[in-house]
Amino acid sequence: MKRFFILTAFAFFFLPAARAQNGMVVYQTDFGLKDGAVSEMKGVAMQVDPTLKLYDLTHEIPAYNIWEAAYRLQQTVRYWPKGTVFVSVVDPGVGTSRKSVVMKTKSGHYIVSPDNGTLTLLAESMGIAELREIDEKINRLPGSGGSNTFHGRDVYSYTGARLASKKISWDQVGPLLPAKVVAIAYQQAVIEGNQIKGNIPILDVQYGNVWSNIPEKMVEKLGIHYGDKVAVEIYQEGKLQYSGQAPFSATFGAVAEGQPLSYINSLMNFSLALNMGNFAATNRIGSGPGWTIVVKKLL
Amino acid sequence: MKRFFILTAFAFFFLPAARAQNGMVVYQTDFGLKDGAVSEMKGVAMQVDPTLKLYDLTHEIPAYNIWEAAYRLQQTVRYWPKGTVFVSVVDPGVGTSRKSVVMKTKSGHYIVSPDNGTLTLLAESMGIAELREIDEKINRLPGSGGSNTFHGRDVYSYTGARLASKKISWDQVGPLLPAKVVAIAYQQAVIEGNQIKGNIPILDVQYGNVWSNIPEKMVEKLGIHYGDKVAVEIYQEGKLQYSGQAPFSATFGAVAEGQPLSYINSLMNFSLALNMGNFAATNRIGSGPGWTIVVKKLL
Amino acid sequence: MKRFFILTAFAFFFLPAARAQNGMVVYQTDFGLKDGAVSEMKGVAMQVDPTLKLYDLTHEIPAYNIWEAAYRLQQTVRYWPKGTVFVSVVDPGVGTSRKSVVMKTKSGHYIVSPDNGTLTLLAESMGIAELREIDEKINRLPGSGGSNTFHGRDVYSYTGARLASKKISWDQVGPLLPAKVVAIAYQQAVIEGNQIKGNIPILDVQYGNVWSNIPEKMVEKLGIHYGDKVAVEIYQEGKLQYSGQAPFSATFGAVAEGQPLSYINSLMNFSLALNMGNFAATNRIGSGPGWTIVVKKLL
Repeated sequence: MKRFFILTAFAFFFLPAARAQNGMVVYQTDFGLKDGAVSEMKGVAMQVDPTLKLYDLTHEIPAYNIWEAAYRLQQTVRYWPKGTVFVSVVDPGVGTSRKSVVMKTKSGHYIVSPDNGTLTLLAESMGIAELREIDEKINRLPGSGGSNTFHGRDVYSYTGARLASKKISWDQVGPLLPAKVVAIAYQQAVIEGNQIKGNIPILDVQYGNVWSNIPEKMVEKLGIHYGDKVAVEIYQEGKLQYSGQAPFSATFGAVAEGQPLSYINSLMNFSLALNMGNFAATNRIGSGPGWTIVVKKLL
Repeated sequence: MKRFFILTAFAFFFLPAARAQNGMVVYQTDFGLKDGAVSEMKGVAMQVDPTLKLYDLTHEIPAYNIWEAAYRLQQTVRYWPKGTVFVSVVDPGVGTSRKSVVMKTKSGHYIVSPDNGTLTLLAESMGIAELREIDEKINRLPGSGGSNTFHGRDVYSYTGARLASKKISWDQVGPLLPAKVVAIAYQQAVIEGNQIKGNIPILDVQYGNVWSNIPEKMVEKLGIHYGDKVAVEIYQEGKLQYSGQAPFSATFGAVAEGQPLSYINSLMNFSLALNMGNFAATNRIGSGPGWTIVVKKLL
Repeated sequence: MKRFFILTAFAFFFLPAARAQNGMVVYQTDFGLKDGAVSEMKGVAMQVDPTLKLYDLTHEIPAYNIWEAAYRLQQTVRYWPKGTVFVSVVDPGVGTSRKSVVMKTKSGHYIVSPDNGTLTLLAESMGIAELREIDEKINRLPGSGGSNTFHGRDVYSYTGARLASKKISWDQVGPLLPAKVVAIAYQQAVIEGNQIKGNIPILDVQYGNVWSNIPEKMVEKLGIHYGDKVAVEIYQEGKLQYSGQAPFSATFGAVAEGQPLSYINSLMNFSLALNMGNFAATNRIGSGPGWTIVVKKLL
């Protein structure tokens, strides 16, 4: 009986910790790895707590590309244990009034980032549990400040490391903000009459395939089946950039070499490819919030 | 006496563990580091066991280049402690019938990989202790599967992490296979009469030197000494690509600038260079299983 | 009382350990990450002690660029905890008589490196506490040696790992040398009459800005204030490469697009930029010990 009580108490006090910080910090930046910037950030984390475990998402986000930062977080965060702290520094507005925040998702992940659009997609897909503004009076590497400042190191990495190591509690990050982040506008996937509109969030760069945010379910709902003819239009900032047919196919070999096809990619979204070719390069298609795709079934 | 017994028992039970999994996982892929794929793989490993230690071999294997994957493993695995688990994902055949396996080498290293040729060179040099096919019914990230699958993450990293952390025993990887892997054919180094035949496994890319798999011992056996004239022919898929003389030299400065020479490289193999030049680029020499080199001593 | 004594003794014996090795090793090389070289180095460290924590500064130092290796160390080392061991291998003289050393800085950091100029800037800024030559008879991976040697792995990483893990004491690195390293000559920042001379240690490559080693304080001392006209000359190996005016500005927008300006960068040093342009590329300015800058206030 006593043993039962102890175990229950154990569970009561310790199970909530499953969502608490787990001592892991995962970094994402647009700094590249040619200089010492990322290493400085990690050095500061090791000063905070040498038992932290430091990992990387990527440091090859194209310079200032907030959208791609948002997309990479969206793809990757879910595969890390709850309680992991992400530090994402893609910050074209450093020095301006953009807020420095930590977002806690409903899944129990923490993301330290400027609130500049980087959190757009994660906030949508995982939901915001709470959002706090970093109080830089407390959460800043001692001795840093003045104009000799590197926010990624002195504020973001320092705060992420302190949070991950529980040197500060979640409350001590700073004041609570309304649970709403700066969001980048883009075309959500929607069915309008006999067509689907969506966005091209990213290219599958290695192969030049074009990925959309249109889920397989919408394609099914429109009654598109393998073998059907599909009309596709792609717009950049509202200007038509591509118009053509791309048969909906289960395998690339369903069309002749060099011919376009549409298919469902590994994320279960509608996509475009050239069989043995590069759809994006051939048709000069890019990706990001300004790219829209319209899909219709041809009868 | 009792102490002796205890120590003996200790040795009996624990020394074999020297070859058991040591909690380290080393990753190799052709994914690059621009997106989140490698980070997703590591996130899954951290979900399996947050005490694992995760390292990298390289993620810059050229896309689908199984031969180079094999070569990098061959060069690197031996420098890691016995019991380290390697996860190598260069997998042009994903979705086909290629088997997913774990090879345990006689040296006590584990390599998780598609059985597509990646294991060719390690199997030769280290020997296969045992080979198991991954049972994907058991060894697959819960909730993954269907067409939304990323084998590198959901099967290879998950299985590698579970094996490294001893969440599964070696037996639980899956059924034992015959100790034989899919091997890429290439020209082994052999003496035939007055010449040596061999392969060009890799270029020393930074300098454009051409490395062979012909060991110094064979060069000695043919009676080639420093200062001797050496005739070299290089074939790609049987077609002559280069024919010339390259004096066998102890230092690059033994020939005039821009002139070819042959030498023994840091792996103790016969190699070719231009003094202050790029032999491979100048003579359009590549590397891989299709490249053969023939070496003769000129009298 | 007894307790006080124990605590005092504790402090006496253990506080000096704050500067002792802390089990972290940070690697810097010019090897890139395409092959297995860096992984071999880390594998050897894991053989020495699997509890070590291994990190990276960068592996993208341009081949043989000792100056840049020196600069990256200078920027980064200070952000890591005291007691961290750095292993830097940029070693064009491998195989020559250059010494292999470990420098202990007055800040309590350790740097394992060839003594070839790599230590120039750290020795100046942090000061040398002690310098030891690596005794390769003791501190070399067992079984390595002969011509099949990779110093970065067999000597530098092996010694760094042994030192970091306290398998060897600081004394056991090898014999003490005079506290003086091979130094690369460059123009120190100095005021001469009405001008300041300095060096261009590095470019801010992503934006093409030109950074100098001239501190803000010297600029102030010359009486240069925001809005003042400033004349700048840049020399490569004594040859004039650029001559022009660059108003001293608090913001880039203080000059028209495409126009040059001078400013204080995040390291608090005098720098040059084109507003919305690339000063270095436009004026073909490089960096390194051979680049000198001269700054004058125009009346």
